[in-house]
Amino acid sequence: MGETFVIVGGDAAGMSAASKAKRESPELDVVVFEKGEWVSYAACGMPYYVKGDVAELDDLVSVTPEEFVQGRDVDLRTRHEVVAVDTDAKTVTVSADDERFEQPYDHLLIATGASAIRPPFDGMDLDGVFTIHDMDEADAIDQFLDRHDPETAAVVGGGYVGVEMAEALSGRGLSVTLFEMLPHVLQPFGSVVGEAVEEHLREQDVDVRLETAVEGFAGSGRIEAVDLDDEGVSADLAIVGVGVEPNAELAADTGIELGPTGAVATDEHGRTTAPDVYAAGDCAEATNVVTGEPDHVPLALTANRSGRAIGQTVAGEPTEVGGTAGTAIVKAFDLGAARTGVLDESAAREAGFDPVSVTITDESRANYYPGSEELTVHLVADRDTGRVLGASVVGREGAKRIDTVATALHAGLTVEDLQNLDLAYAPPFSPVWDPILTAAKVLGGRLDDGK
Amino acid sequence: MGETFVIVGGDAAGMSAASKAKRESPELDVVVFEKGEWVSYAACGMPYYVKGDVAELDDLVSVTPEEFVQGRDVDLRTRHEVVAVDTDAKTVTVSADDERFEQPYDHLLIATGASAIRPPFDGMDLDGVFTIHDMDEADAIDQFLDRHDPETAAVVGGGYVGVEMAEALSGRGLSVTLFEMLPHVLQPFGSVVGEAVEEHLREQDVDVRLETAVEGFAGSGRIEAVDLDDEGVSADLAIVGVGVEPNAELAADTGIELGPTGAVATDEHGRTTAPDVYAAGDCAEATNVVTGEPDHVPLALTANRSGRAIGQTVAGEPTEVGGTAGTAIVKAFDLGAARTGVLDESAAREAGFDPVSVTITDESRANYYPGSEELTVHLVADRDTGRVLGASVVGREGAKRIDTVATALHAGLTVEDLQNLDLAYAPPFSPVWDPILTAAKVLGGRLDDGK
Repeated sequence: MGETFVIVGGDAAGMSAASKAKRESPELDVVVFEKGEWVSYAACGMPYYVKGDVAELDDLVSVTPEEFVQGRDVDLRTRHEVVAVDTDAKTVTVSADDERFEQPYDHLLIATGASAIRPPFDGMDLDGVFTIHDMDEADAIDQFLDRHDPETAAVVGGGYVGVEMAEALSGRGLSVTLFEMLPHVLQPFGSVVGEAVEEHLREQDVDVRLETAVEGFAGSGRIEAVDLDDEGVSADLAIVGVGVEPNAELAADTGIELGPTGAVATDEHGRTTAPDVYAAGDCAEATNVVTGEPDHVPLALTANRSGRAIGQTVAGEPTEVGGTAGTAIVKAFDLGAARTGVLDESAAREAGFDPVSVTITDESRANYYPGSEELTVHLVADRDTGRVLGASVVGREGAKRIDTVATALHAGLTVEDLQNLDLAYAPPFSPVWDPILTAAKVLGGRLDDGK
Repeated sequence: MGETFVIVGGDAAGMSAASKAKRESPELDVVVFEKGEWVSYAACGMPYYVKGDVAELDDLVSVTPEEFVQGRDVDLRTRHEVVAVDTDAKTVTVSADDERFEQPYDHLLIATGASAIRPPFDGMDLDGVFTIHDMDEADAIDQFLDRHDPETAAVVGGGYVGVEMAEALSGRGLSVTLFEMLPHVLQPFGSVVGEAVEEHLREQDVDVRLETAVEGFAGSGRIEAVDLDDEGVSADLAIVGVGVEPNAELAADTGIELGPTGAVATDEHGRTTAPDVYAAGDCAEATNVVTGEPDHVPLALTANRSGRAIGQTVAGEPTEVGGTAGTAIVKAFDLGAARTGVLDESAAREAGFDPVSVTITDESRANYYPGSEELTVHLVADRDTGRVLGASVVGREGAKRIDTVATALHAGLTVEDLQNLDLAYAPPFSPVWDPILTAAKVLGGRLDDGK
């Protein structure tokens, strides 16, 4: 008789694990419990559904439930919530419409994801106030736009969700005000990116209000205004995107250890502190490849990769889940912005580094070649060792070049190594010295001067 | 009194060395002898000048002679040819219009570049038959097009110059036939890229003739046809782009050792076998980072970087010139194609590897996101160690992603390392699994199966 692999949560991490385990070990019984309706969907695509660039919510589904059940022989149960785990008996307690039952497991994966933070604002429950983290919310926003034809929107929070939703709602013809408590939008991308994106958002007629705390929403039944400390700002719709928190309650209630970030602590194979229990995706920590410390980076690639690795491990071939470099990229209207590694000076010091950085602006193509755009690169390294710690880039073309630095971080390259990389050059694609190389040259000079 | 740094050749390698040496050590006398008129120009931009995308030849000049002389205090002498080197006396013999003199040096850099190969075709001297390697040739082609308004063009050679010139001449309204002796165009990019580019060239109405040897050109005074073994093909213009050869005569005549490729042998600091004599750029070898063997990759970045490093070394700070991964990228109409490392199976075996490869086609963006294009990735690794050996990519968007693999080659990463890279994902920029990661996943599976 085959073993049973139970998976809690049917999105990226869970379904990657299910597919991989079943493919590698067909005799395994793979059971997935998903408390909602949607499985295996691209949450990152939701802003583009709201904007209208993606026609149907279904377009965001990578693999349908039918394909999992019929094509991949995965026992997928939507609208089934796992409410408890007994790690001694090796069972989970499942709650569905009209039943509650125990499901035994040999291997268990907790892939419960994350949730949008709901701040304790007045008026959070008003009609027209939304968070956007799951497909039903995207659907509700789209329906609200169709039904009420709002003219003004407030976006609360200037993280990537806020920036993407500002673009989406502008694209739907709304006049958008974006509120950010911190001095700059896209805080994890650093101020170089933040300032460039703010300037661009303003060019696109987004009213960007920095260092501005929202206190709540006013209206009777439906939202009418955003309340600040000293004024009210009209809004027919509000999106609250102030971050996410890991859904770690199930693990915590089971006595599984959480890490310093509040997400589930895992080892290099994605194992939790409970025997035969794994965690992956937005509810779990990953190891930062720069600091070597646990990190919580709830992004799609990490979820997919760790899920897949755990599926392979459960199928009998132990596979490491890999680390995170905290790489992220975001589109803000016509700009692309990206980041990787450790950018924040105090975070770098805390991890034992002595950070030194440069910011350069160069061209995306040969300067004489049509269509070349400015690309700004911020590069950070450790003064003593020259090791590259992180980078951010921003421009109308070429933000994916962050991948060069992400690769360098995984390999532990120094600034000298970076400036010696043989990157691709031809006039339509790059200057002779790719902007990443130029940043490395300038930072290399600064490191030399300091010696 | 300061030392004298003499540089032979005023393009990328020579002028990078001159600028860097003078900046780091202002007391150094830096003398550059350039036998032609043009210095510090982007030869890679010439096809785009011929096409009409770049208005003036002068736009391709990075730094003017005046800027070198006035702004950087470099003693630049154009129309001065170095005809001999005496490494005992440490002098060079210089020939100019009406004089011939000896110039002493403390440090000498040979940066004599490369020349277009002129095959022994009949009719090579006919009017309308061109090679394109220096600025005067680009100018002559442009003038010929203006003066004679040719309707048909033959491009002989399907390397990157041939492919770029096919695009340029089509852009000028000519009907283009491209002749390639080998089974595929862009041979160093491998057949996956070659086939994709051939198909695209044909879609663009370029008549691509593979495995077709040109024997010469016919015409009286001006070219009228290309002669093949069994037929003639009408042509009002011909571009011969069958490769380049290093200008290594000066070094060879001096008794300096040439390497196995026929270019000047150099060590990790760009030193030749003669004391205080360096070589850099298209006339010199570089170390291949994959094989560790000498290689001849006459491309702009290597020239700039090695020149700059030698300038720094001469200025008193020994700096390694860095290796080459053989990275290259080329635009062919709407396609981008790129390569890095060792792709050729027999070359890999010769270097002691047991190559295994995969080819995958994925999307450049999330499949539901507008504007996504197919990107094909060919990835090669060593079976025993899993070490990545090389890659090629081709598609309408995303060819610069080759840089990720180029970086991996410098760092000696394995396929497993590659598939664990935290690359940037958001729907407008990439699928969750970047196509490079997908190729690594598939190749990783193949390597596992072989164990």
